[in-house]
Amino acid sequence: MADIKYEILEKIGEISVSPKGWTKELNLISWNDRPGKFDIREWDPEHEKMAKGITLSKEEALKLRELLNKIDF
Amino acid sequence: MADIKYEILEKIGEISVSPKGWTKELNLISWNDRPGKFDIREWDPEHEKMAKGITLSKEEALKLRELLNKIDF
Repeated sequence: MADIKYEILEKIGEISVSPKGWTKELNLISWNDRPGKFDIREWDPEHEKMAKGITLSKEEALKLRELLNKIDF
Repeated sequence: MADIKYEILEKIGEISVSPKGWTKELNLISWNDRPGKFDIREWDPEHEKMAKGITLSKEEALKLRELLNKIDF
C-alpha cells in the first residue's frame, strides 16, 4: 500500500483502550495535506500503526452528535 | 472473504448521503449473532454492500458522545 501522509491536527480524546494497549480515538486529522477531518480510529500504543476507522466532515460529526444525543442509553 | 452474518437491530439514523447515493449511518448491529454494537458505516443505496466502518460498545458510544459534545464546532 502506498504511504498515506497524515498529520494529527488535534487530539480530541480517547474513546477506549484495548487489553493490548490499542486506543480508539477521536482526532482531527489532515490526510494528504487536505483540510482536517474528524477521525474515529484505533492506534497502536506507539501511535505508529493505525487500524480501520472512519472519517467525518464537520457536518457529519454534528449529525452524529445529534443522533448520539437522542439515544436513551 | 468469508460471509459475515449480521442483523441490523435498530436503524438509528443517517449521517450523510454521498453523490452516488451511499449513506453513512449509525445503526445498532448484531455481528455473527453476538449482542448488538453501535456501528458507523457506509452502505450502498440498496443496503446490500457495506464499506469501511467502525463498531462501538455502549461505553464507547457514550464516551464518543461526551467528546463530541465538548467540541466547539
